[in-house]
Amino acid sequence: HLVCCRALAGVITRAARKQLPRTSAAPMHSSDDGVGSSVPESRAAMEQRYLEKAEHFMGSHGDAQDGDDDDDYDDSYAEQEGRPYVPPASVSDGSKPCFATNIEKHFVVPARLQDKPYELIEAANDWHYAMMNDHPRNEFYKAALARVVKPDSVVLEIGAGSGLLSIIAASLGAQTVVAIEANHHLANVAREIIRRNGYEGKIHIINKMSTEVTPAELEPFGTPTVLLSEILGTLLLGESALHYVMDARQRLTTPDCAVVPLRGTQFATLVDSADIASITSVKDWQGIDLSWFNSLQDTTSMVFTKQYGFRFSSCSYTELAPRLPVLPIDFSSDQVGVWRGEKRTHLQVQKAGTIHAILASWEVYAIGDSTDKPLVMATHPDATLNNFPRDMQWGQGLQLIEDMACEGGSPVPFQVSAGEWLT
Amino acid sequence: HLVCCRALAGVITRAARKQLPRTSAAPMHSSDDGVGSSVPESRAAMEQRYLEKAEHFMGSHGDAQDGDDDDDYDDSYAEQEGRPYVPPASVSDGSKPCFATNIEKHFVVPARLQDKPYELIEAANDWHYAMMNDHPRNEFYKAALARVVKPDSVVLEIGAGSGLLSIIAASLGAQTVVAIEANHHLANVAREIIRRNGYEGKIHIINKMSTEVTPAELEPFGTPTVLLSEILGTLLLGESALHYVMDARQRLTTPDCAVVPLRGTQFATLVDSADIASITSVKDWQGIDLSWFNSLQDTTSMVFTKQYGFRFSSCSYTELAPRLPVLPIDFSSDQVGVWRGEKRTHLQVQKAGTIHAILASWEVYAIGDSTDKPLVMATHPDATLNNFPRDMQWGQGLQLIEDMACEGGSPVPFQVSAGEWLT
Repeated sequence: HLVCCRALAGVITRAARKQLPRTSAAPMHSSDDGVGSSVPESRAAMEQRYLEKAEHFMGSHGDAQDGDDDDDYDDSYAEQEGRPYVPPASVSDGSKPCFATNIEKHFVVPARLQDKPYELIEAANDWHYAMMNDHPRNEFYKAALARVVKPDSVVLEIGAGSGLLSIIAASLGAQTVVAIEANHHLANVAREIIRRNGYEGKIHIINKMSTEVTPAELEPFGTPTVLLSEILGTLLLGESALHYVMDARQRLTTPDCAVVPLRGTQFATLVDSADIASITSVKDWQGIDLSWFNSLQDTTSMVFTKQYGFRFSSCSYTELAPRLPVLPIDFSSDQVGVWRGEKRTHLQVQKAGTIHAILASWEVYAIGDSTDKPLVMATHPDATLNNFPRDMQWGQGLQLIEDMACEGGSPVPFQVSAGEWLT
Repeated sequence: HLVCCRALAGVITRAARKQLPRTSAAPMHSSDDGVGSSVPESRAAMEQRYLEKAEHFMGSHGDAQDGDDDDDYDDSYAEQEGRPYVPPASVSDGSKPCFATNIEKHFVVPARLQDKPYELIEAANDWHYAMMNDHPRNEFYKAALARVVKPDSVVLEIGAGSGLLSIIAASLGAQTVVAIEANHHLANVAREIIRRNGYEGKIHIINKMSTEVTPAELEPFGTPTVLLSEILGTLLLGESALHYVMDARQRLTTPDCAVVPLRGTQFATLVDSADIASITSVKDWQGIDLSWFNSLQDTTSMVFTKQYGFRFSSCSYTELAPRLPVLPIDFSSDQVGVWRGEKRTHLQVQKAGTIHAILASWEVYAIGDSTDKPLVMATHPDATLNNFPRDMQWGQGLQLIEDMACEGGSPVPFQVSAGEWLT
């Protein structure tokens, strides 16, 4: 049963490293020649472009952060640390095609969209609406900020988006809020939303990557005492949250600044699900044996549920073992790059069944009330029940499992019994 | 209320033209340098590559099919007709990287996958398992074939995949089945499945695009009397089904051959859905007005529900008007290119509400039993209830709607009253 633990190790590794961000709906776009048949730059291609920019960026910024090297710590990993995720459309040279030119000519493009950059519309429609409508998320941040924001607080937000969290911080009485938003179109939208809500004087937008903001730029507002961010991916560190939080903590805030969220945990769990099996494997149908097709089953890749096209909370599934915390993160003190490339784990199966997949989800925490109960926000599928927007912004990660002890031409289902230890 | 009908016209147009195919889960892949940070070729990029191949292909085959030109029929449309959808991995030069080289080095790649082409694994895991496990789909084909297959039938299948439908045809007593599958890896898998089920002598695989198969190649098997295919996309003609069926009908079969499926209808309907609204628009939250963000709402693109990441059948929604048949297709006689670029439609609203989106789904039909009741297979969300695989292979198309009569900086919700006519 080595494979299962190696797959768990994979979840840890992927959680610790830069990963694909929250994933998105991919509209059917048309080309600008009216033919409507070409496929435009995809998110993946776009991300690749931005990764290239990130590499460039790290050429000047990244080296100083590679301090934890040791024998178990391979070079490629060190290299990765230097390349955090950079959100799409963070940097724009202003020459991007406008929305209308990307759409087949006889389609209706509202006047308000005609001249907006295509990449802005795509980014905004990806998951921003779901995120803003995830009210338990907003409430988590409001409660967390209420615990740490004082009348003399200077709040620094990384990745402000619509400006909602900065507005919440301002509404709680912070002296000043500085909201960093790298996408200059979103920065403009946030400025308008802030203006419409009467926080023009309180919230200041800086349109840069947070790593490019200097202490001198913040001087007019005071040194930040609260560091706020919501740059969490489908995997906890999928959008390089710790990279950006660590950098800001080290360069831009007071040494003892409050960090929201404060901590987080990446979880993995083993699931038995006939629904998952029904879209990832095949048996026979009315006496016709189709099982040879399973020789093509991909038990290596991790796929996000949102990319599969379903919400895990709307499927039937059983967890066969307790959720395993595979990577705890303290956003107030952890350094990027302290994890090994792989970590072995022991866990005990609690229910007999077939492990169809490892499900990856996370929790983040903030300082709670006087009973010391921390505030929690989670992406476990049971935490997203009746929260459609939560599913639609994050979902979970899913990796198929086979029993590699019996490896052959076709994958053998990984059957386990109650009480069995996987080591 | 012009926009609504123009959007409906868009559904027609997109249904009639080549569109993106069934969509897929996009695994998080890693690069071959062990860094794990690069994003590999996406499906979109892959499709783009194949479209380029399709263009090349149509350079020699497409012109003959452009017969229906007229004044209302624009050149770009004629050009499109010449470029049918070509499935990914249909043509391989054998130089594609194998699966293992695409995966970060410390991940576990089963031996059975190590040397298989990456594109094969991706294609197979996209939606093939869901398709094979869509038992009502299999039953539709079995019942349809049972009506037309005779002991002297020569069945020609276009796009055989796993070989399942060809095996069903053979099991029903057809004299011979010729199964065309352009992906040579899938063709090999189908051969093995056919062998394992004892139909080696009955079913013959031809590994080509159907448009490249000549009558001479079929001569040894006899002229096909039954033409079978399941190359239906999220939109009915999304995988250019009529292109391939028409071509085979005209060149490869008997003039009066039975066609399965025989007919189809692309439907569009107007839906009110708080769930859809919650991921595509924003109002206010606890007194904070976020509505300016709606200025970025994309009411132009059609997005597939599977790409959004949810199943429509698991959402709450209300249909505000009867489903409208926007494009009827007769696979046994229709020609590609007989539709105009746009078709106006009148429909009456039956329930008051807000039209959040147009939902596109389809039905296909086959000859039914003696009561003349046709056999039906559908992608309406009520037809996919309790059929997870159906949702996971096709889903539906979704286009957001706004009231463009009141166009301004932000979209105005399209509210309708019962009895209202949209013209």
